Amino acid sequence: MPPEEFRARAHEAVEWIADYLGGVGDLPVFPSVAPGDVRAELPTSAPEAGEDPSRWLEDFRSIVVPGLTHWNHPAFFGYFSVTGSGPGILGEMLSAALNVNAMVWRSSPAATELEEVVLAWLRELLGLPEPFDGVINDTASSSSLYALAAAREIAFPEAHARGLFAMPRGRIYASTEAHSSIEKAVLTLGFGQDGFRTVEADDAFRMRPEALARAIEEDVAAGIRPVAVCATVGTTSTTSVDPVARIAPIAARHGAWLHVDAAYGGAAAVAPEMRPLMEGWEQADSIVVNPHKWLFTPIDCSVLYCRRPGALRAAFSIVPEYLRSAEESEVRNLMDYGVSLGRRFRALKLWFVLRYFGREGLAERIRAHVRMARALAGWIDDAPGWERVAPTPFSTVAFRFVPRDADAEEIDVLNQEILDRVNASGEAFLTHTRLRGSMAIRLAIGNLKTTEAHVRRAWELLDQAARASVNERTATKT
Amino acid sequence: MPPEEFRARAHEAVEWIADYLGGVGDLPVFPSVAPGDVRAELPTSAPEAGEDPSRWLEDFRSIVVPGLTHWNHPAFFGYFSVTGSGPGILGEMLSAALNVNAMVWRSSPAATELEEVVLAWLRELLGLPEPFDGVINDTASSSSLYALAAAREIAFPEAHARGLFAMPRGRIYASTEAHSSIEKAVLTLGFGQDGFRTVEADDAFRMRPEALARAIEEDVAAGIRPVAVCATVGTTSTTSVDPVARIAPIAARHGAWLHVDAAYGGAAAVAPEMRPLMEGWEQADSIVVNPHKWLFTPIDCSVLYCRRPGALRAAFSIVPEYLRSAEESEVRNLMDYGVSLGRRFRALKLWFVLRYFGREGLAERIRAHVRMARALAGWIDDAPGWERVAPTPFSTVAFRFVPRDADAEEIDVLNQEILDRVNASGEAFLTHTRLRGSMAIRLAIGNLKTTEAHVRRAWELLDQAARASVNERTATKT
Repeated sequence: MPPEEFRARAHEAVEWIADYLGGVGDLPVFPSVAPGDVRAELPTSAPEAGEDPSRWLEDFRSIVVPGLTHWNHPAFFGYFSVTGSGPGILGEMLSAALNVNAMVWRSSPAATELEEVVLAWLRELLGLPEPFDGVINDTASSSSLYALAAAREIAFPEAHARGLFAMPRGRIYASTEAHSSIEKAVLTLGFGQDGFRTVEADDAFRMRPEALARAIEEDVAAGIRPVAVCATVGTTSTTSVDPVARIAPIAARHGAWLHVDAAYGGAAAVAPEMRPLMEGWEQADSIVVNPHKWLFTPIDCSVLYCRRPGALRAAFSIVPEYLRSAEESEVRNLMDYGVSLGRRFRALKLWFVLRYFGREGLAERIRAHVRMARALAGWIDDAPGWERVAPTPFSTVAFRFVPRDADAEEIDVLNQEILDRVNASGEAFLTHTRLRGSMAIRLAIGNLKTTEAHVRRAWELLDQAARASVNERTATKT
Repeated sequence: MPPEEFRARAHEAVEWIADYLGGVGDLPVFPSVAPGDVRAELPTSAPEAGEDPSRWLEDFRSIVVPGLTHWNHPAFFGYFSVTGSGPGILGEMLSAALNVNAMVWRSSPAATELEEVVLAWLRELLGLPEPFDGVINDTASSSSLYALAAAREIAFPEAHARGLFAMPRGRIYASTEAHSSIEKAVLTLGFGQDGFRTVEADDAFRMRPEALARAIEEDVAAGIRPVAVCATVGTTSTTSVDPVARIAPIAARHGAWLHVDAAYGGAAAVAPEMRPLMEGWEQADSIVVNPHKWLFTPIDCSVLYCRRPGALRAAFSIVPEYLRSAEESEVRNLMDYGVSLGRRFRALKLWFVLRYFGREGLAERIRAHVRMARALAGWIDDAPGWERVAPTPFSTVAFRFVPRDADAEEIDVLNQEILDRVNASGEAFLTHTRLRGSMAIRLAIGNLKTTEAHVRRAWELLDQAARASVNERTATKT
């Protein structure tokens, strides 16, 4: 595409983006499409000859956009709510145009050095001590995989050469509330399902340290090596916080690596008053924090901080000749810290975000999200028939509707109905979880355009949906 | 950032990008920076208060850009040369603004379905049969890891539950010329270095099938399970092509998974006359092709085609409650095919690229790159003192300067000097490899802006550098 054609089309795209960012709040958050609808509108083969950009940009607007779930919508409250912020989008635009690959220093010196600088900034913003060395990965799933690979390297130094065959069994521990990516990492690393032991959580869905200690002791007595303990600061279902300060000494006593999954919750440490929630994380061997979750950076950007980067390198550094260079002893080659050799220039967008907001701006927006979540928590606590099912330490609220006369099964059906009604309205998008076998609705706040009015409206929709569902059920019964 | 501020800044960014794309050819391809230079220009902490975008956009231009290696430069001939094309950049811009996560169908229906559609298009463009099911990953390193995890699932069904502990040893085979990501995957999966057996290559750096057969037979006799064979279509050092059609029956005979790493070379199948190079790849269990390498799509975009997607799902599908939804039986949830849960909307840029160029346009550009490489190969073959060190089946040429009176060590030193001189000129950027212990220079062609004049100029620079180095050496000796 000649630069002048690109210029014209890209200005057009910017107009569309700016309108989208300004107007996304008026679109239905969740599209009214059934499986296969979008596919049915598209041809089954690529065109033989090139097509004018006006055609595919029009199809983008008329076919693709109406089939999207709008993650950048102020009433997107599903999963973890995120923001593709202006400075972040600018970073992605420039990075796509540069198209550099930050695999080794030489392949793009400024991309490697900016990554080092921006991760030192973020470390300071989070209040983490200097020994933590950072690297950007795509997602927390990858970051946790790499951290646990480093843990395996320490626990089974012989396995680097010989593999896990004929090794004594090893195990990785996490609470029943840990993210599925931890189990996925355990399986990927060759430990098998039996290599993953879940530890009981307390009433607030936090890992019970005494249960962890017991589990490890039992296993050690049975000849099983404790490889790593994964604690979570902000679980996915309820954003519960494992007591890292009490877990750390248990891991240390058994020589197990301590990995902290703070992919969502860690961002809150930018506001110092939130740091008691992270108590003890500075004792971890590795911590994952995702700027693409609650630091307003477009997906993907996951930061792995590691206190023992040598173990990551031991697990992953294989330098073939075509990637060797004269600077090797003086520089860091970021490909040595994980699986992916190719590495996008993700530091750029994060740098723009940190500079646009500054420490104060980030803290202020995190506080605003926490305040809105607490407001919602208060409304729920005050509303008859509704109950919160877990504490609300961050910006995500888990709750359900529990009418007096309903049994457990009816309650689940009712809450699913409420969720479906709200999502069908297109005015808000929420997702659910199950806690001790029961359905719960989650409302996650994380978009910069979300105001208390959006949360208030979602709450009205929920309450209306609850009443409508109850009325229908009463009508059916009589 | 308010939408109107974004609009203004993004138009500014587009102006910069269009100027960059038009003028990058005038910049030095490789920057004249030493390790630490870029870092030294940046503050050590994030700003306390937010900064005006003009400040960080200016720092981007004046500090970051001069420290980059320009991958989008027409004379970037290093590693594998790539293109962040206009339509691809437009795709990344829109995808960053939408910020959707294509982890499950529900989290963004159109993103999942467009990925299915565009990968069916690409499969047809490559001439692969329908049973191949595609999924987009970040890089070939991840794609190969996921494929080999599926292979492990088949070879060690018991390991899913129990891990590799107490299992008979397993091995993965690849030629001595295979990409380092294969060994990294083997280590990540818990097989250890001993779980990776390299197979001898022939004079043209292609895996010797008879050596593979012998290696597997030896191992089977020793009680080792053959898990997978990785064949390469376009090795990194010399773009050599393993004889997949002869390797496939050997893998099949032993029940080993056949993975084809065609991350670079596979793209050439868009031009039907290149397909003899891929002969037999349709018999593979999995194939990786990277549109971000030679299909003009900005990094990152790696496609894994798999004939046994059930094995990928068996390896990776763990569906926690908060990701369950009513549509599960009817839709595909792409998170089930690999490690990463979070998935960017990468299909969009690939869709734009395929529509902008069409089949003909892609084939024509690939042919042009191959033609330029053949021209260079001819110049090298005709030039006294120069020799190609491998055949040139695609668009990458491997060669070296071999003056008559020099010994092996002198030749290596001389070629390193030549490479350093050319790269220091800023007019072209090349990288090297080692083949059977000897240094070789690589010139990879893959940028859409590259013309024969750029290749001709690089060749002049190489030849001048060779003469200058020889003259200096002669002067020193006398």
